Amino acid sequence: MVDNNGRQVNGTDGVAVVGLGNIGIGLALSLRRAGFDVVGCDLRAERMAVLTAAGGRSAATPSEAARSTRIVLSAVVNGQDTEAVLFGREGVAQTLAEGGVFVSCATMNPLAAKGLAERLEEAGKLLYLDAPVSGGPQRAADGQLTVLASGKQAAFRGAREALAAVSSKVYELGESPGQASAFKMVNQLLAGVHIAAAGEAMAFAARYGLDLRKVYDVVVASAGNSWMFENRVPHVLEGDYAPRSSVDIFVKDLGIIEDMARAAKFPAPVAAAALQMFLMASGAGMGAEDDISVARVYAQITSTPLPDKFSV
Amino acid sequence: MVDNNGRQVNGTDGVAVVGLGNIGIGLALSLRRAGFDVVGCDLRAERMAVLTAAGGRSAATPSEAARSTRIVLSAVVNGQDTEAVLFGREGVAQTLAEGGVFVSCATMNPLAAKGLAERLEEAGKLLYLDAPVSGGPQRAADGQLTVLASGKQAAFRGAREALAAVSSKVYELGESPGQASAFKMVNQLLAGVHIAAAGEAMAFAARYGLDLRKVYDVVVASAGNSWMFENRVPHVLEGDYAPRSSVDIFVKDLGIIEDMARAAKFPAPVAAAALQMFLMASGAGMGAEDDISVARVYAQITSTPLPDKFSV
Repeated sequence: MVDNNGRQVNGTDGVAVVGLGNIGIGLALSLRRAGFDVVGCDLRAERMAVLTAAGGRSAATPSEAARSTRIVLSAVVNGQDTEAVLFGREGVAQTLAEGGVFVSCATMNPLAAKGLAERLEEAGKLLYLDAPVSGGPQRAADGQLTVLASGKQAAFRGAREALAAVSSKVYELGESPGQASAFKMVNQLLAGVHIAAAGEAMAFAARYGLDLRKVYDVVVASAGNSWMFENRVPHVLEGDYAPRSSVDIFVKDLGIIEDMARAAKFPAPVAAAALQMFLMASGAGMGAEDDISVARVYAQITSTPLPDKFSV
Repeated sequence: MVDNNGRQVNGTDGVAVVGLGNIGIGLALSLRRAGFDVVGCDLRAERMAVLTAAGGRSAATPSEAARSTRIVLSAVVNGQDTEAVLFGREGVAQTLAEGGVFVSCATMNPLAAKGLAERLEEAGKLLYLDAPVSGGPQRAADGQLTVLASGKQAAFRGAREALAAVSSKVYELGESPGQASAFKMVNQLLAGVHIAAAGEAMAFAARYGLDLRKVYDVVVASAGNSWMFENRVPHVLEGDYAPRSSVDIFVKDLGIIEDMARAAKFPAPVAAAALQMFLMASGAGMGAEDDISVARVYAQITSTPLPDKFSV
């Protein structure tokens, strides 16, 4: 590990990872594979056990995790939890050494990211890298995430080696924290709309009696295709709604879009319609299930059968 | 040309093409290149001149065009015009020889396609192939369209050689006319939503001050990508709204989706929101301009600058 001036730093080849959920555990294990001393922090003992089995260390609190490192990757679920990790009673800000970098991977409102960065960097001693990730649990496990990042050059310098260990691509999107989160939210607007549209289209096709596997083949080869259609519709064809990424993720992310849109007095009716579909799915009890469960909402309302994994 | 029993037919290596618009002219010229005797029909003299310059012949009416052929490709704009081509005062049905195949390439309501087919095939002498195409003017010109087709096996046999000359892929989607149109409409639902979402996302990104070229690069490499985003957003980046495919095409196609949805009592709120955006663009005077003009609607409403091709 090198410091901000490019000098080797003694005894601190350590990285803390706070939040060992589906993304965080992938970050931690990828860092271990790259030879980093990783200290993890998560309330769930079984998550900590996965990391310690791979040679990582465990810390009881974020402040303890940050004590022995100069870089903290935070992979909790949203902006509120990120704030608690940083500034809570046992928060990172209490112990992170001067020049240390806090890398926030959660998807959040860009204005929230900007606010956290300003607060952390206020005293001029700590750095914040706004660094939401994309790619999901499998690519996190493989160390192949895409990172969208913005922040001071010094923050990039401090985080670069650790980010290289967890990602295949790092987009450097500006010097202001919040910018990377805004890029991420634009991507989430599209991703969420495309999932809702995929659900709407597949249930509509079923209502009109079409062979759904042929619909998939035709669309994937046509101008109606999207990354999400291609990735999620196989779950519909298999009738398998085990969560890879859940409905409630898009209730959250399209909710942030609507917050951002209202704040900027920007009408976003297509995203708003998609959000309503994820809310219907969540309200119908599918919040923790796979996000393409929106297809089941249309199907249930209209009594249209979709493939069922128990069909033989 | 072979007849329905596989025998060579004397003196009828001819194909009629009715409607020489952006798609029809591509069909006609691709058939000429493949060596077919092509007779075209269009009210616009300059369109006919393009075909005759390539060695095609011209007919004054659909019935005249159909007189000397056993296969007619119809590439007019919608179901209503297709009905006129078939059953109007100078329609194809009057002259097409027994066993002749009418290939309908227009995008229309599947129930309309089914109705036209039933009417044409009623007497048991003529055949209808429901064959909407996908790929746009450039791929039509190159003979590289995708054809979605459904109809009787005899209709496929009669049309197969001609379709091979105009397309890179023919999906055979069932024995009932209307089925192929339904597949096409499912694709159009997705395509229309994806264009509206692309416009919403790019104007939203501009409102939040992001570098739009970077947004394009990030999204195209991420889970928010769609075929339409990748294809249409460059027009926004160049500020170039010359029509490749116009706003009013999606006013029509998403309108058909809403007709189909209402008829089946199927709620389609995401497609409905997208349709409203195309209606806004058309109502604001952009109906004949490029379909990604929806981005300009969001931009104009919110006074958000988008790239302008006259910027230097």
